[in-house]
Amino acid sequence: MLKASIDIDLLRDSITALSVIVSEVRLKIKPDGISVKAVDAANVAMVIFDLKAGAFDSYTAEETEVGIDLVKLNDILGIVEKKTLVDMELDMTAQKLHLNFGGLSYTLSLLDPSTIRSEPRVPQLDLPARVVLNGQDLKRAVKAAEKISDHMTLGVAGDIFFMEAKGDTDQVRLEMGTDQLIDLKSGEANSLFSLDYLLDIIKSAGKANEVTLSIGCDFPILIEFDVAPNACHVTFLLAPRIESD
Amino acid sequence: MLKASIDIDLLRDSITALSVIVSEVRLKIKPDGISVKAVDAANVAMVIFDLKAGAFDSYTAEETEVGIDLVKLNDILGIVEKKTLVDMELDMTAQKLHLNFGGLSYTLSLLDPSTIRSEPRVPQLDLPARVVLNGQDLKRAVKAAEKISDHMTLGVAGDIFFMEAKGDTDQVRLEMGTDQLIDLKSGEANSLFSLDYLLDIIKSAGKANEVTLSIGCDFPILIEFDVAPNACHVTFLLAPRIESD
Amino acid sequence: MLKASIDIDLLRDSITALSVIVSEVRLKIKPDGISVKAVDAANVAMVIFDLKAGAFDSYTAEETEVGIDLVKLNDILGIVEKKTLVDMELDMTAQKLHLNFGGLSYTLSLLDPSTIRSEPRVPQLDLPARVVLNGQDLKRAVKAAEKISDHMTLGVAGDIFFMEAKGDTDQVRLEMGTDQLIDLKSGEANSLFSLDYLLDIIKSAGKANEVTLSIGCDFPILIEFDVAPNACHVTFLLAPRIESD
Repeated sequence: MLKASIDIDLLRDSITALSVIVSEVRLKIKPDGISVKAVDAANVAMVIFDLKAGAFDSYTAEETEVGIDLVKLNDILGIVEKKTLVDMELDMTAQKLHLNFGGLSYTLSLLDPSTIRSEPRVPQLDLPARVVLNGQDLKRAVKAAEKISDHMTLGVAGDIFFMEAKGDTDQVRLEMGTDQLIDLKSGEANSLFSLDYLLDIIKSAGKANEVTLSIGCDFPILIEFDVAPNACHVTFLLAPRIESD
Repeated sequence: MLKASIDIDLLRDSITALSVIVSEVRLKIKPDGISVKAVDAANVAMVIFDLKAGAFDSYTAEETEVGIDLVKLNDILGIVEKKTLVDMELDMTAQKLHLNFGGLSYTLSLLDPSTIRSEPRVPQLDLPARVVLNGQDLKRAVKAAEKISDHMTLGVAGDIFFMEAKGDTDQVRLEMGTDQLIDLKSGEANSLFSLDYLLDIIKSAGKANEVTLSIGCDFPILIEFDVAPNACHVTFLLAPRIESD
Repeated sequence: MLKASIDIDLLRDSITALSVIVSEVRLKIKPDGISVKAVDAANVAMVIFDLKAGAFDSYTAEETEVGIDLVKLNDILGIVEKKTLVDMELDMTAQKLHLNFGGLSYTLSLLDPSTIRSEPRVPQLDLPARVVLNGQDLKRAVKAAEKISDHMTLGVAGDIFFMEAKGDTDQVRLEMGTDQLIDLKSGEANSLFSLDYLLDIIKSAGKANEVTLSIGCDFPILIEFDVAPNACHVTFLLAPRIESD
């Protein structure tokens, strides 16, 4: 059971963040909110998504699990005008999700959750370095790296957080000290990541005021941020690439 | 003979509405304005176009008929800046239409009207229901329907006007009561139309404050609106599709 | 040796103007500024580019020549935010150009100048007519001509500057008298040029307040303008086409 109302912009941003690495998800609906854990088909990236009941204008739910086609949902939400309130109601008997916005009602068929990859186990990682920075700064470095390579290094050296990409002949590097970062926990960290995934992730993370990166040496990275403060929290876990040079 | 001046925005909107279903037209020029009746190549849609003499800043014409390539005309009008006045002059001897805007003169060769499909006979339709709504509302429903199907139903049930599209699994529906409509004449009406054509038509109709739909049961629909009030009136007549499910 | 700072918008506009006809250039660096002379692969167009030391916020240079990949440079400058100051430093030992903007450092490998076509000899042309007009007016006429042909005539007849393009059936013509031009030196001039090149050139020239055209009869045209007043001056020399009708 789910009956809820939510602002379209918050819903759209949440669904966008979630759909970065998967196109179909199992939504775990509970009285205190909606959550998702999912991995991409290549087992390279994981998303842990948490949309709290408090993010909704109204929210009543009993515990259940439903399968959702994020592509279809994204597509239809794209035509809703800003500031509209979206009413959602789950019809478990008919296996439908009803969406209502501005007089338009849209009925989305649920997917059978058993056809969707089950929730992954989230690994316990002990990552030595932690960096908190503005999403825009992360986005800028990833966009610059894209110009010359298909992978980039993120790391911490002393009190400096750095991002670096190397092409065949050219190189781009961003260094940020503690005065430019929101927070830094120093530790040995230096890992290489695929830009394909980072480019997808910064679509959402780039809008966040604070993005927290937890980094190790040739270890997965955790990229955490609020889509909306105290309302929707997303964590991406991205596996490292083997050093290519 | 034709010698006239018209505001570029009005001319551009008029030509755009007209070119929705045909790329070459016979313009019927008369002392009281310019009119067109044309059907598309598939005989599914008809446009009845009426640009009144009063829409022009100045207008002098004798009765004549000319063939115009709307694609070329649209193309050249696309580069004219907003608020410019366009001077038009027909040279029947040379078979040219001269356009002047902001110091630039453009000479468009006329087409031989006999090479263009002749004016269709406009059928007399006795359509039971009539709905007047804002162009934006029509546009929104058509755009939503496009997300899940290639055809949509328009109809009236009691005092409710509805639009509905069904995909393989999903469904979108808009219902509007008399409080949301500008006007409603109730009557049994329920017909299915191709979204290809509706999507083209709402490019123009979506901008109109008032769009009048006349609907029957498995009957053609009339979609009427003013491109500019008291200046340019357009009617589309669209044939229904046979119910596909 | 080169160590300089420059506003990103000025650098971007300069590089854009320069990259209109060539993708790799020999930059001639001197204490008083940076200059380039280059011809396109087809030997149809030449660019003479002059970025003065005064255009920079700071500039120190010794005479040298370096090869630059303009496509890569344009690409990376595209992500820099407006109003940013770009620091440039040449490392001749490592054959690198270091760019720094907003904390991001980008290292571009230099090309071996000997692999790039050497500087062309600039022909001495005695062109009878000279027209100074607003870049926007030139752009508008070129854009209109593009709609109907792939080449256009530029010329002067008496006190009138004209641009004209003829399609198979249609024609576009712009005439400007001395009251619409910034300056006119009358002289017999009438030459045909490829729109491919003119369309590229107006990307930069269209933004200039003053563009000077020097025209002859079936002779090359000189198109001169400031990318930034007293800072960056560009001259294009474009060979005429043989009259095609």
